[in-house]
Amino acid sequence: MRHLISTATLTREEAILLLDTAEDMAATQDREVKKLPALRGVTVVNLFYEDSTRTRISFEAAEKRLSADVINFAAKGSSVSKGESLKDTAQTLHAVGADAVVIRHPASGAAQMLAERGWINAPIINAGDGCHEHPTQALLDAFTLRRRLHGNKARGRGLDGARVVIVGDVLHSRVARSNVWLLGALGAEVELVGPPTLLPGEFDRWPATTGYDLDAALARKPDAVMMLRIQAERMRAAFFPHTREYARMWGLTEQRFRSLPEDTVVMHPGPMNRGLEISSAAADSKQATVLEQVANGVSVRMAALYLLCSGVKEGTN
Amino acid sequence: MRHLISTATLTREEAILLLDTAEDMAATQDREVKKLPALRGVTVVNLFYEDSTRTRISFEAAEKRLSADVINFAAKGSSVSKGESLKDTAQTLHAVGADAVVIRHPASGAAQMLAERGWINAPIINAGDGCHEHPTQALLDAFTLRRRLHGNKARGRGLDGARVVIVGDVLHSRVARSNVWLLGALGAEVELVGPPTLLPGEFDRWPATTGYDLDAALARKPDAVMMLRIQAERMRAAFFPHTREYARMWGLTEQRFRSLPEDTVVMHPGPMNRGLEISSAAADSKQATVLEQVANGVSVRMAALYLLCSGVKEGTN
Amino acid sequence: MRHLISTATLTREEAILLLDTAEDMAATQDREVKKLPALRGVTVVNLFYEDSTRTRISFEAAEKRLSADVINFAAKGSSVSKGESLKDTAQTLHAVGADAVVIRHPASGAAQMLAERGWINAPIINAGDGCHEHPTQALLDAFTLRRRLHGNKARGRGLDGARVVIVGDVLHSRVARSNVWLLGALGAEVELVGPPTLLPGEFDRWPATTGYDLDAALARKPDAVMMLRIQAERMRAAFFPHTREYARMWGLTEQRFRSLPEDTVVMHPGPMNRGLEISSAAADSKQATVLEQVANGVSVRMAALYLLCSGVKEGTN
Repeated sequence: MRHLISTATLTREEAILLLDTAEDMAATQDREVKKLPALRGVTVVNLFYEDSTRTRISFEAAEKRLSADVINFAAKGSSVSKGESLKDTAQTLHAVGADAVVIRHPASGAAQMLAERGWINAPIINAGDGCHEHPTQALLDAFTLRRRLHGNKARGRGLDGARVVIVGDVLHSRVARSNVWLLGALGAEVELVGPPTLLPGEFDRWPATTGYDLDAALARKPDAVMMLRIQAERMRAAFFPHTREYARMWGLTEQRFRSLPEDTVVMHPGPMNRGLEISSAAADSKQATVLEQVANGVSVRMAALYLLCSGVKEGTN
Repeated sequence: MRHLISTATLTREEAILLLDTAEDMAATQDREVKKLPALRGVTVVNLFYEDSTRTRISFEAAEKRLSADVINFAAKGSSVSKGESLKDTAQTLHAVGADAVVIRHPASGAAQMLAERGWINAPIINAGDGCHEHPTQALLDAFTLRRRLHGNKARGRGLDGARVVIVGDVLHSRVARSNVWLLGALGAEVELVGPPTLLPGEFDRWPATTGYDLDAALARKPDAVMMLRIQAERMRAAFFPHTREYARMWGLTEQRFRSLPEDTVVMHPGPMNRGLEISSAAADSKQATVLEQVANGVSVRMAALYLLCSGVKEGTN
Repeated sequence: MRHLISTATLTREEAILLLDTAEDMAATQDREVKKLPALRGVTVVNLFYEDSTRTRISFEAAEKRLSADVINFAAKGSSVSKGESLKDTAQTLHAVGADAVVIRHPASGAAQMLAERGWINAPIINAGDGCHEHPTQALLDAFTLRRRLHGNKARGRGLDGARVVIVGDVLHSRVARSNVWLLGALGAEVELVGPPTLLPGEFDRWPATTGYDLDAALARKPDAVMMLRIQAERMRAAFFPHTREYARMWGLTEQRFRSLPEDTVVMHPGPMNRGLEISSAAADSKQATVLEQVANGVSVRMAALYLLCSGVKEGTN
C-alpha cells in the first residue's frame, strides 16, 4: 500500500493487515503513556477543505500518539481564498517536506488526484471526498464489527458470512460506498435499504443486494444494522417528504429496535440525528457501537498512518 | 478535586493548594528550558465555543509547558455547524481518548453539564461559561494579589482581612462571580460597586457588600481595586446612557487613581478598554497588575492541569 | 540581529550568515529524522492577521523541525474582534512567555512596531506587513538564486554581478521591496519592469533601474527573471485594463520564455496565476525555481529562527 484512497482497491489481505495492525495499536492505548515513537520526525499535514469535528480530531489524536509533527490546514483562512489550486497546494506541501497528507475535500476524486498526479511524493489518506469514499470510516466499522463478532479471537479473520444491512441515504454516503467494498472484500453479505430516491438503480452494479422495505430486511435477522446519517447539508433537493415520514419508514425506531435479536449489532458513523434515522433507545443500547466506532477510529488511523509512513522511512520518499 | 468548574465549591484548602502549586510552576518558568515532563502522553483538548485570545493561548502555553499533546477545537469549523450536540461532542472526545478537556462556552452551566453527565470520564476545566464562572481567572487574580500582599512569603497563606473592591459590570461578569466566591473562601472582604442596572438586587445574597458610589468605596482605602471589562458584546440592552458617562461615574479615571494610596493594587482581567473602565494612567502604573495577571495565568493553569491530570494518571480514568 | 523586520537594514555579512546557516539547515533535512533539538522548550507564536497557506505552513514546519512549541494565533477567532489592540496582544504574548513571534499583518510597519515599542521582549520575525516587506521571502529567493548560480560552492558568497529583472506589480509587492534591498546588499543589479501604474516615480530612489518594456529587459539577457504575483485582493482600483492585456504586455508568456537563454533562472514567489503573469510553459520548465523556493523557505526560516532564538537562550530575554 502506498496510499489509502478507496476500499474498492483494497485486497482482503491488505484489509486484514490494516485491521490486525489496528488491534496492535489499540493494545498500546491501554498503557499509562499512550504515545509511541513510531513517527517521530515525520510531518503529517491534515488538509481539510470541509468541516469535520470527529474525523479531524481522530486523525490528529492518532498522529500525536505516534509522535508525528502535525500541521493542520483548514481551507478557510488559506490561499484557497486567493484561488490557489489543489495542485499548487500539493506542491507547496511537498516542498515544505510533508511526509504524509490526510485530505478531506468536497469533490469526489480529490484524494485520488492528489495521489496520482505526481504533485507530491508522500502517502495520501482519503478522509472523505465528496460522495465518493471514506475508507478509514469503513475500516473502523469493519474493525468494530469484527471485534463484536469474534472478540479477542478477531486477529487474522475476515467477516465471512456476516450479514450487514446498510440503511438510509446511500446515494450521498461515502460511508456506504466504502463499506460496501470493504465488507465485500472481507466476505460479508451486504443489503442496502432506503427510499428509492436515495437508492437509485446504479447500485445494482455494486456487490450488494438492494431493497426498499426496512422491516422485511430486519425480519431476516442480520448480524448488523448500519444506520446512515441523514446529511441535510448534502441534499440540494427534496428526497423525502418530511423527516417524520423518513423516521417512520427508514429510521431505527424504538419499536423496530426492540424487534431485533439481542445480539444484532447497531452501528452509526455519527454524529447521530436522534429521532430521525435512529431512536435514542437504539443509540444508547448496549448493542449500539457508536462510541466504540469512534474509539476504534483512532486505532485504525494509527494503523493506516503507521503502515503507509513506515514505507516512507524505508526510503520510498 | 476531580474538575475545576466553579470557585463556589472550592474549599479554602483546595484553593491554597492550587495557589501553592502555581507558585511551584512559576518557579520552573525562570529556568532556561521551561518544559516539564509531567503530562507527557496526556491529550488535552481545548474546546472553545467562544473566541478568546488570552485564555486559549494561556491554556495552550500551560499545556505545552507540561508536555501534553494539545488538540484545539474551535466550534466554528466543526460538526457544531452540523447540529452536533455538546453530548455527542463530549462522547467523541471521550472515545478518541481525551485525558482532559478545557471548555469555554457561551451558555452558563455548559462546563458543569460536561463534568456531571457521564458523557466523558476526564477532568473538565471551565474556561468561562456564559455569565456564570471563570475559575482560573479568579485563581490567577488571587495568586497575583497574594503575591503583591505577601511577596515571597505567600505560600500557605490566604487573603485574610484583605479588602477588595470589584467595580463595573458585575451583572454580566463571570470574572466577578468567580472572584467573589474565591476571595471569600480565602478570607478577603469584597465590595461590589457599579451602576444599579449592572448590579441588581440578587447580589445581596452573595458574600459581599454592594454599593453604587465608587468614590465612597475608594475613600475607604481598599487593598485592591479590580476593574471589570465593559463587554459591549454581551450587552443586549442599554445598561448605561453613554460610555463617557460610564467612565466618569465608574471608571478608574486618572483623578481617581491619583487619589488612591500608593500601595493599592489595581487589577483588570484584560483586554482593557482604555479610557472607559480604566485610564491609561492607572493601567500603566506600577500598581497595576494587568500583565502579572496574564503571566500568572499560565502558572495557575499549569497547576490546575497538573493537579487534575495527576489524578487521571493514578488510575481515576 | 535581534529581529528580522526588513532587508533594508541587513548588512551583507548578516545576509550571508543567514544564507549560510540556511545551507546548514538544508543539509539536515536530508536525514531520516529531520528534527533538530535546537529550540526545545522555546515557544514560538505565529501571529497571523492575514490568511496565508504557504507562509504559515512553512514557518510552522521550520519551527517544528527545530523542536519548538508552536502556538498558532489567527486574528479571526480572537480578541481582535473584541477590539484588542496590537499592543495588548503583544503584551499578552509577552506575559504568557512567548520566546519569539512571527507576525503577518495587513498594515505596513506592524512588525516594526512590535519590535520597537517594548511591549514584548522577544525576537520578532516579519512574515509580511502590508505592502512593505517580507524579508524571509527575499532571503529564500536569494538562497535559491545563489544555489542556482554557484551550486555547492555557494557558501560564503553573495550575488555579485548577477542581473535580476523583477516584473509586474511592484507597487503592491512587499516581495519586490524586500528583494530590491537584499539583492542590492548581496551585490546584484536589479531592474524593475511593469506597467507605469504599478511602477510609479517613487521607485527612482531605490537601488534599481526601472523600465516599462519587458521585451527590452529580457533582450539584455538577465541571469534571473522574477515574476511577481498579480494580487487582485490588494488592488482597490483598476491598474490595468484587462488581465489578457496584462499577460500580453508583462506576462512571461510561452513565447517570451522560449526567447530566454537556457540558463536564465525563472522565479515566482507563488501561488502563481498561470496564464496571467506566468505561462505554464515557463512555470513547469526546469529553469523555474518555484518549488525550490518553497522548499528553501523552510531552511531559511529555520536559519532565521535559530539565529534569533539562540540569542534569546544566551540570556538576552
